[in-house]
Amino acid sequence: MIPVIEEAELRAAVTPARAIDVIRDAFRADGEGRTTVPPVINLGVPHGEFHVKTAHIAGVPHVAVKIASGFYGNVSNGLPTGSGLMALFDAETGLPAALLLDNGFLTDIRTGAAGAVAAEGLARYSIETVGVIGSGVQARYQVQCLRIVRPFSRVVAWSPSRERLERYCDEMRADGVQAIAATTVEEVCAAADVLVTSTPSREPLVRAEWLRPGMHVTAVGSDSAGKQELSGFCLIRADLVAVDRRAQCAAFGELTHAVEAGLKIEPIELGEIVAGRRTGRTNDSQITVADLTGVGFQDTAIASAAFCWIGS
Amino acid sequence: MIPVIEEAELRAAVTPARAIDVIRDAFRADGEGRTTVPPVINLGVPHGEFHVKTAHIAGVPHVAVKIASGFYGNVSNGLPTGSGLMALFDAETGLPAALLLDNGFLTDIRTGAAGAVAAEGLARYSIETVGVIGSGVQARYQVQCLRIVRPFSRVVAWSPSRERLERYCDEMRADGVQAIAATTVEEVCAAADVLVTSTPSREPLVRAEWLRPGMHVTAVGSDSAGKQELSGFCLIRADLVAVDRRAQCAAFGELTHAVEAGLKIEPIELGEIVAGRRTGRTNDSQITVADLTGVGFQDTAIASAAFCWIGS
Repeated sequence: MIPVIEEAELRAAVTPARAIDVIRDAFRADGEGRTTVPPVINLGVPHGEFHVKTAHIAGVPHVAVKIASGFYGNVSNGLPTGSGLMALFDAETGLPAALLLDNGFLTDIRTGAAGAVAAEGLARYSIETVGVIGSGVQARYQVQCLRIVRPFSRVVAWSPSRERLERYCDEMRADGVQAIAATTVEEVCAAADVLVTSTPSREPLVRAEWLRPGMHVTAVGSDSAGKQELSGFCLIRADLVAVDRRAQCAAFGELTHAVEAGLKIEPIELGEIVAGRRTGRTNDSQITVADLTGVGFQDTAIASAAFCWIGS
Repeated sequence: MIPVIEEAELRAAVTPARAIDVIRDAFRADGEGRTTVPPVINLGVPHGEFHVKTAHIAGVPHVAVKIASGFYGNVSNGLPTGSGLMALFDAETGLPAALLLDNGFLTDIRTGAAGAVAAEGLARYSIETVGVIGSGVQARYQVQCLRIVRPFSRVVAWSPSRERLERYCDEMRADGVQAIAATTVEEVCAAADVLVTSTPSREPLVRAEWLRPGMHVTAVGSDSAGKQELSGFCLIRADLVAVDRRAQCAAFGELTHAVEAGLKIEPIELGEIVAGRRTGRTNDSQITVADLTGVGFQDTAIASAAFCWIGS
């Protein structure tokens, strides 16, 4: 029998601050060439989809295999649309070490943490307003993690659902942040020092002309083929485009659409910045974009760390 | 919390006869176009490797994600070299349904069952002698499953380890089968009506000129890049070559080596035979070969069936 760890225990152990430290280390390992990341499995089924990610990080004692599902029709049955679990294996023996029944929590927090790590390398040191497109789980985790590395006083948000947007803004206020519900994406862009896009959109929401000097954009919504939040021209307009993994971003990230449109983008990898091999932002007027699709080494890093914290 | 089912409970529920029925149905589903099979994940790490397989079968209520590991240095620490588990998800909602801690048992028995299904379509109706190359887990499961669909009286076996070979023959005798330890692969081929190759060999063990009219060969050892048990010419010499999955066999099965050698092989898929869309053996003098790499739909089929049997 192996330990089976439930979501509540994982939530108690894995805080945003701890997650950021772990995910920063994972990106550093990647930038130093210490990760092995095979292509992900995408399995489409009649009512949903499964994604499987895994990776090895030299120096991390486990390998996680993460299985995530998305079944959007679940809403009508009162079930969660996204779910998942991680199986953890000993990296030295291959033997099963633990099952983490996180229902997607570890994915959510490591994605938020990756946004914070991107901001450390790409956002201005001093920011006031965070723009948020979307009102779902990542609209929350991105903001929660970002404020640890770049404190701010205000959120301006937009979402296709006005009801969800109002609820989101109420939550932000309860967290001590001034929150404004915007009526257009353009309005959010006009106010944002850092812009987070976190929707499952299949057409561009953000136009290149709305990006302003000094702005940093983190796009986390495009995590499978067909999804898109930024116009391809946003990536051309940016002075610096960072991706979490070139191969993935070219296959199903924001980068895909720019490349398909024939635009020549030369992204750097976030790991290269964290490892000090490439330079992130160098002045306050650059426009920067981070295209984050979620990489298996983040799952291995967060799952191994969570298991070690809970075990100790 | 989801049910966690241990190896002992799975062994009690999943008999060879039941496994054969389930795996035959899975191949029929595949031949009828009712499966979705994404590419497998292969993750090499410093001391071993992980393989991840999954598939959807229309009509089967679950999707299994199977994670198998191979760490050959484990022997020196008294640990098993192969391990694994299967995570089972509801195919309609994507929610986790169960964890099967089978330590590779379900893979072993479904691989044996696939050999039996191949023999049903490709071996002569009446056989006397089974040749076995190898003396490991599959040398056992292939014989155990084969005798259910093609009764026989004798096993002639060869293995690079004489000690393991003698132990294997003793076990066969205890099971009521006459067993002969051969000293060469050629000697096995000269006696075999059905030949099973089940080694992790990286160079061909069986030469084309050793194949005799009427013989059927099931090769199960080549399950990842670089492995090979049959000379590429065996596949040319055969009147009929069946594969469990074209894409996989061309990437890492016996078929790979024939194709790399420039030989033109037109394999049929085992599922096409089971579904009645292609013809298997048509007379007693044909030479037939089944190249089995192990497909995700077998894992989904056996895992879902095992869970249903144990639950009911």
